[in-house]
Amino acid sequence: MREFIVLGHDAPTDADFSLDSLPNAGRLDLLCRCVGSSLFLSHDIRDAVQVHLVLRDELTVRFDSRTLRNARPDERNLAGLVRNALDHKNEAIGHREAEPSPGVHISKRGLEPTLDRISDRATVVQLHEAGRPLADAEPPEHPAFVLSDHNDFTPDETDRIQQHADQRVRVGPHAIHADHTIAVANNYLDTDAYTTY
Amino acid sequence: MREFIVLGHDAPTDADFSLDSLPNAGRLDLLCRCVGSSLFLSHDIRDAVQVHLVLRDELTVRFDSRTLRNARPDERNLAGLVRNALDHKNEAIGHREAEPSPGVHISKRGLEPTLDRISDRATVVQLHEAGRPLADAEPPEHPAFVLSDHNDFTPDETDRIQQHADQRVRVGPHAIHADHTIAVANNYLDTDAYTTY
Repeated sequence: MREFIVLGHDAPTDADFSLDSLPNAGRLDLLCRCVGSSLFLSHDIRDAVQVHLVLRDELTVRFDSRTLRNARPDERNLAGLVRNALDHKNEAIGHREAEPSPGVHISKRGLEPTLDRISDRATVVQLHEAGRPLADAEPPEHPAFVLSDHNDFTPDETDRIQQHADQRVRVGPHAIHADHTIAVANNYLDTDAYTTY
Repeated sequence: MREFIVLGHDAPTDADFSLDSLPNAGRLDLLCRCVGSSLFLSHDIRDAVQVHLVLRDELTVRFDSRTLRNARPDERNLAGLVRNALDHKNEAIGHREAEPSPGVHISKRGLEPTLDRISDRATVVQLHEAGRPLADAEPPEHPAFVLSDHNDFTPDETDRIQQHADQRVRVGPHAIHADHTIAVANNYLDTDAYTTY
């Protein structure tokens, strides 16, 4: 299993946004590309990947590749699935999830309960400019990479992630988009740290 | 300089498509994500990257990061730039380009003249499942990666690319999307084949 946690600081928490203007919906375009980078192979969906979009530290939309249906890699399709999940957010009671469409879950969890739950089962990997080069890090059996949208992590988020993190890595000399980072991380895992092609 | 050539087999060659349904416009969603993966850093555009979308072997839309303006990484914005270029295709006479918006060029070149021109200045890198592992290949000074959209290269395209190719590489054990492959290739170049972070 691989997991990706992406923090959407400006992301919508209601379904009242237009699919025609995703950058203006709190950069949902970027969050949707993160979902696509996490889940899709060419003409296929990866076997065991979960991606968690943490929206404004209020809600988490979780995509699970094992049960996902009706998903395509374009931003608009994925944003439609997020919007549908938001439309059903009141079915998520407390920290219990609702599953408004197959493989797409929504809960009223923010970052802390999402990290708590995932760090019990996974090796939490923090992306950090002072971390080890990705190529030098041993690929965990069950990694959970934590990423941010177009905004940096806040100091408080950095602290909270650090408390749960088992590894800190950096992916290169430039700051790149979260969806590109996920593509790099998937390739690193696919090739067992660039050793198996 | 880095270059990426992406073949769009089903891509539109006229501007009469809707930005609301890019997957149905010959998978222009994927081609636009390829443009985004090629050009963008977080909050920045890369210094010297060109991406060439070869549309149905009839037209080539070329994005040049050095002069590009008004581009954002979302699919819809980039598709709008492609559509605008197609709307001005008649300004491209013979193999001469038109530049309907800053940094976005269109020409009536198909694959062969595009490859001819690029192979004079660049090391053409063919992505091929029988190629060398990317991590073992020496990063060229001026690489030009050739990729395909959701369709495989045709036998004829494979032959033509092979005639121009200086290297054959593979990026991993799975077939992944072209935009994810570009993110991997950029990271390989950024890190000097995973040695410099």
